[in-house]
Amino acid sequence: MSLDTPAATKPHERLATHLAEDMDAVNVLIRERMASEHAPRIPEVTAHLVEAGGKRLRPMLTLATARLCGYTGPYHVHLAATVEFIHTATLLHDDVVDESNQRRGRPTANLLWDNQSSVLVGDYLFARSFQLMVETGSLRVLDILANAAATIAEGEVLQLSAAQDLATDEDIYLKVVRGKTAALFSAATEVGGVIAGADEAQVRALFTYGDALGIAFQIVDDLLDYGGDSTKTGKNIGDDFRERKLTLPVIKAVAKADLEERAFWSRVIEKGDQRDGDLEHALALLDRHGAMAATRADAVAYAAQAKAALEAVAPHPLTDMLRDLADYVVARVT
Amino acid sequence: MSLDTPAATKPHERLATHLAEDMDAVNVLIRERMASEHAPRIPEVTAHLVEAGGKRLRPMLTLATARLCGYTGPYHVHLAATVEFIHTATLLHDDVVDESNQRRGRPTANLLWDNQSSVLVGDYLFARSFQLMVETGSLRVLDILANAAATIAEGEVLQLSAAQDLATDEDIYLKVVRGKTAALFSAATEVGGVIAGADEAQVRALFTYGDALGIAFQIVDDLLDYGGDSTKTGKNIGDDFRERKLTLPVIKAVAKADLEERAFWSRVIEKGDQRDGDLEHALALLDRHGAMAATRADAVAYAAQAKAALEAVAPHPLTDMLRDLADYVVARVT
Repeated sequence: MSLDTPAATKPHERLATHLAEDMDAVNVLIRERMASEHAPRIPEVTAHLVEAGGKRLRPMLTLATARLCGYTGPYHVHLAATVEFIHTATLLHDDVVDESNQRRGRPTANLLWDNQSSVLVGDYLFARSFQLMVETGSLRVLDILANAAATIAEGEVLQLSAAQDLATDEDIYLKVVRGKTAALFSAATEVGGVIAGADEAQVRALFTYGDALGIAFQIVDDLLDYGGDSTKTGKNIGDDFRERKLTLPVIKAVAKADLEERAFWSRVIEKGDQRDGDLEHALALLDRHGAMAATRADAVAYAAQAKAALEAVAPHPLTDMLRDLADYVVARVT
Repeated sequence: MSLDTPAATKPHERLATHLAEDMDAVNVLIRERMASEHAPRIPEVTAHLVEAGGKRLRPMLTLATARLCGYTGPYHVHLAATVEFIHTATLLHDDVVDESNQRRGRPTANLLWDNQSSVLVGDYLFARSFQLMVETGSLRVLDILANAAATIAEGEVLQLSAAQDLATDEDIYLKVVRGKTAALFSAATEVGGVIAGADEAQVRALFTYGDALGIAFQIVDDLLDYGGDSTKTGKNIGDDFRERKLTLPVIKAVAKADLEERAFWSRVIEKGDQRDGDLEHALALLDRHGAMAATRADAVAYAAQAKAALEAVAPHPLTDMLRDLADYVVARVT
């Protein structure tokens, strides 16, 4: 931990402070590249999301990993903007797919404008992200990010078919989570190492860190949906339940369900026949089978795996912050 | 014209015959890359479109331009598959945006499955297309195709805001058309030259050919919407009118409208208040101002520009076929 920041500060805030200059450059580049000479709708929709005060966690991971590997060139900024554009594009498309009306505590773009704008501006940001990565001139970086983009889309499609299907097991859940969350985290950390010319062992370790951190992050998100404080998380308890999503707590409870419980899950998740008191009953079942505790234990194990990966990474104040970040991600539920 | 095909054969059929072996390789690669280990929905949705019997015009342009520049390597096949994937992805997203229920004479994917699948499978194909182009190892090709993807999305967003707005003029129309159609045509022909290592003058000529051919193609498409034979075109007369799209014939008629006519266009296009007999009245106005003839003349001029560009391209049987293709595109309306 560096001496000039108090221990009480959250790790992502310490990362933001340490990387402030780089992050300013990323924000300038994002504003520059989200512009459109001909279609003012594009920066309007994009600004609504990127200026909504997200934590910029993913671009910070790219900046941090590049810097801790000693990078001094300009392209980590391009890659951080790339990662944020891909993330923003997937949020725009997700909100259309989920028919959401709230994101980061504000109305979604598909509600403020329309689904058409969300689909097409998302496509524009995907294209812009590819332009940015092409500018780095690194074919390896392009390969990593193109693969991540395919994994993300595949995970989202898999989630569509896995939703509402009680046969979804932990293996399928993990594939969905790698797609929807961990693939971009691991690409963000891996390209940081690659652009810095780090050796293969470090690049591999940074990939593993991002992958495990992303999985822990998503498991915690899914856990909070059944037990979080909506004023802190911006999520309402039971959103996933109402949307009939099979997330890890439910998968664990279904695996231990007796016949009567299975009939309940089938009615509320598969058939979508939900009545007053069903959410409370679901929460009681999760509790009865220790599903919340077991899910929490999985998140903690992935955070531990993320931290362990950092053992192979060069010592650096940023490495310490990344380690603390892994703890912080699961601290919300422990 | 080559001696072994009868003069009566359509130019895209002669291209298909000449390029049959390459095209087989493209189809194998497309089927291989549209697969998904985890999400069977992806190849289902993709197959519905790519096996619906489209003409494969865009990938043929890439194969033809690479071959006529003497290319003997394997990557024109990757680039042709890339172009077809980008095209298929934009069709999937277009059908969501337009809320279409028919494409190539069959129900659209958003109707057979759902909007979610169309959005996400489209994203998957975009990502797959980038993986394919990364495999070519050519940063210049990546640059061209990333720029094309951005132009396509920008054109689609511009079309959203230009639709239903009588202030849309021919300049804006041209920007929309470059985005929705010509950008992928010109990228398809340009990368063919680039991958073959053709000199700059030829690459530039191939770009211009694709750009002008794409514009001619789209103008003809828009013209047929007001005067084509629906059994041949698969389009119903007046679809664009009912969807209140401002295409070139209407833009030309609006530019010459008197006050009463302007009030009519404002009611049917801007306000969307359409009544029995309005389409017939619109057709009469297009006729009165020579808008159909003037639009047809524009299409012919772009086809001529496409052919003129080929003067700078090496003589080759494929060059002749591309020249005939430009004539054929506008022959449907002349």
